[in-house]
Amino acid sequence: MDIKEAIGIRKPDIERELLKSFEIVRDERLRNAMSHLPSAGGKILRPALAMISADAIKKGEGKRALAFGISLEIIHNFTLVHDDIMDNDDLRRGVPTVHKVFDNATAINAGDAMFALAFNVLSGLDVEHSVLREILADISSMVIGIAEGQQMDMDFEERTDIAPEEYLEMIEKKTALMFINGAKNGARIASAPPEVYEKMAEYGRYMGLAFQIWDDFLDLTADEKTLGKPVGSDIRNGKKTLMVVYALQRLEGPDRERFLSILGNQKASDDEVKEAIELMKKVGAIQDAESLALDYADRAKRALEVLDDSEEKEALLDLVDYVIRRKY
Amino acid sequence: MDIKEAIGIRKPDIERELLKSFEIVRDERLRNAMSHLPSAGGKILRPALAMISADAIKKGEGKRALAFGISLEIIHNFTLVHDDIMDNDDLRRGVPTVHKVFDNATAINAGDAMFALAFNVLSGLDVEHSVLREILADISSMVIGIAEGQQMDMDFEERTDIAPEEYLEMIEKKTALMFINGAKNGARIASAPPEVYEKMAEYGRYMGLAFQIWDDFLDLTADEKTLGKPVGSDIRNGKKTLMVVYALQRLEGPDRERFLSILGNQKASDDEVKEAIELMKKVGAIQDAESLALDYADRAKRALEVLDDSEEKEALLDLVDYVIRRKY
Repeated sequence: MDIKEAIGIRKPDIERELLKSFEIVRDERLRNAMSHLPSAGGKILRPALAMISADAIKKGEGKRALAFGISLEIIHNFTLVHDDIMDNDDLRRGVPTVHKVFDNATAINAGDAMFALAFNVLSGLDVEHSVLREILADISSMVIGIAEGQQMDMDFEERTDIAPEEYLEMIEKKTALMFINGAKNGARIASAPPEVYEKMAEYGRYMGLAFQIWDDFLDLTADEKTLGKPVGSDIRNGKKTLMVVYALQRLEGPDRERFLSILGNQKASDDEVKEAIELMKKVGAIQDAESLALDYADRAKRALEVLDDSEEKEALLDLVDYVIRRKY
Repeated sequence: MDIKEAIGIRKPDIERELLKSFEIVRDERLRNAMSHLPSAGGKILRPALAMISADAIKKGEGKRALAFGISLEIIHNFTLVHDDIMDNDDLRRGVPTVHKVFDNATAINAGDAMFALAFNVLSGLDVEHSVLREILADISSMVIGIAEGQQMDMDFEERTDIAPEEYLEMIEKKTALMFINGAKNGARIASAPPEVYEKMAEYGRYMGLAFQIWDDFLDLTADEKTLGKPVGSDIRNGKKTLMVVYALQRLEGPDRERFLSILGNQKASDDEVKEAIELMKKVGAIQDAESLALDYADRAKRALEVLDDSEEKEALLDLVDYVIRRKY
C-alpha cells in the first residue's frame, strides 16, 4: 500500500476527531481562532504516521493511537499559529493566518489554548498508566525541543558562521522531533518493545531530517510552476538552509562577498538569484545537501527492517520516497 | 500559624525546585527568557497553597505536592509572559517584561516552552497513575479555561453592557481556576477523598473570586502611598472591574454619560477620577462589590470546615483574611 492510500483510509477518522476535540471550548471567538488553521486542511501527516506505525506493530492498533495522533496534530498546528506571529507571515495553507484574521493577542491566546487542548486529549489516551506517563514526558520534552529549535532558527538569522552540525540540530528539534514522536509512540501504544520503538524513533528522525533538507532543496531546484512560488524565494528571504550553511562555510573572497550581497536581498533579480545558486553549486553545497538527504532517506528505510512485512510497513517505506520526491 | 509563616517555611524548597526545573533547557537565550520572570520573585502563592493543602490533609504530604505546585507556578508565570505581550505591558514585579528585555518572538516562544516545562514537571509527579491522569485532565482544562477568561477579558474592552454573571465567569476562569486547582489537587495528592477535595476546590474558588474583586476594590479605595500607584488607575485604563460593571448597569442619563466619558480616558484628571468614583458610590457599585468579596471570603472559610484542626488549616483561614485585607 502506498502512503497516499494509507493516509486516505485514516483521514475521515482523523479529521472528525480533530474537529470534535475543539467542542470543549465554550468561548466562540476563541474556539473559532483555535480551529481556523486545522479547518483549513493540512496534510495530517503526523497523526497518520502515529496510526500507521501502531498498525505496523499490530494490525488494528492504529485506532488506539488516534487520540495520540490528534494531540500531535494540534501541537503541530499550535506551533504554526505562534510561528506565523513570530515571522509575521500572512498566509498558511492558502488562507490568511490566525493573527491576520483575528489579531495578535487572540492568536497568542488561541495557540496557548490549542497546546492545552493537546494535553487534554492526551489525558484520555487508552494506554497503560505507565505508558501515559512516558508519553507525557516525551511530548512535553518535544515541545521544549521545538521551542529550542525555533530559538536557534531565529538566532541563525543574524549569523553567517553556522556549522552544519548546528543546522542539523536545529531541524532535528524544529521538524524531526514530531516525526520521531509520532513513529515511536505510535509503536509504543501498540505495545512494541523498546528495541522496536527506538528503531521507529530512528526512522522518524532520519525521515524528518530528509523531509526538511528536501523541502529547502526543492526551493532551489524545482521549477516555479511545480513550486507554486518563485524559485529561490529562500535566498531572497535570507533563510539559512543547509545549502546556504555549506556555501557560507566554503565560499571565499569575492565569491563569498557576492553571495552575501544577494542572500536576504528581497529585491534581488531572478538573474542574481540564479547567480547565487551557481555560486552554491560551484562549492558543491547543493549537491552535498542532496546527498545527505538521500543518505538520511536510506537510513530511515533501514531502520524499518525491525518491522515484519505488512502493508503498513510498505506505506512507511513509501513515505520516505514521498518525502524526498514530492513536488508541490 | 499565619499564612506568611506557612509560605515562608516552604519558600526555600519552592524557589530551589522552581529554578532547577529550567536546567533541562539547553538553549541559553531561551532558558534565560523562560526564567526571567520566575527569577524576579513572585508571591509563590499557588505552589504554597498546593503544599499547605496537602499538609492540611496529612502532615508531611506537602513535599509530595511540591512538583505539582512548581508546575502551577510555571503555568502562572507563562500566562503572565503572554498576557504582558497581549496587553503590551512594560513592567512586572518591578522589572521589565520578557518581551521588553528580549523581543516579542522570543517571549512568545519562551512562554510556550514554559508551558511545556510545566507538563514535563507534572510527568514526574509522585502519585498513583490514576491520579496523574486526573490531574493532567484538570490542569489542561484549567489552561483552556484561563485562555477563555483572557478572551472574555479582551472582549469586555469593547463592551459597556457586561452582566455581573459574565464578569464573575471571567474572573473565575482567569484568576480563580489556579486557586481551585492548587487547593483541590494539593489535597488529592495527599489522598483526600472526593468529598474533601471538592470542598477544597470550593475553598479555592471563593478565595480566588474574593482575591480578584478585592484587588480591583483596592485600586479605588486605598491611598496612593499604600497602592504604590495612582488611585483609580483602573478607571483611566477603562478596566471592566465588578464595580464598573455594576455602575454601567445602574447609572442612567447624564450620570452614565459622564461616567463613560471618564472611563478609559488616560488623561482624566484626579478630580475626574474622584467624580467617577463618587458616581459609582452613588449607585452602590463599590459597596456591593465589597460585600460580595466579603461574602465570598466567608464561604471560602466555611468550605474549610471539612478539615480537621491543624496549623495548616489555620494558615488557609488566614490566607482568606490576607486576600481581603492586603495592602500593597
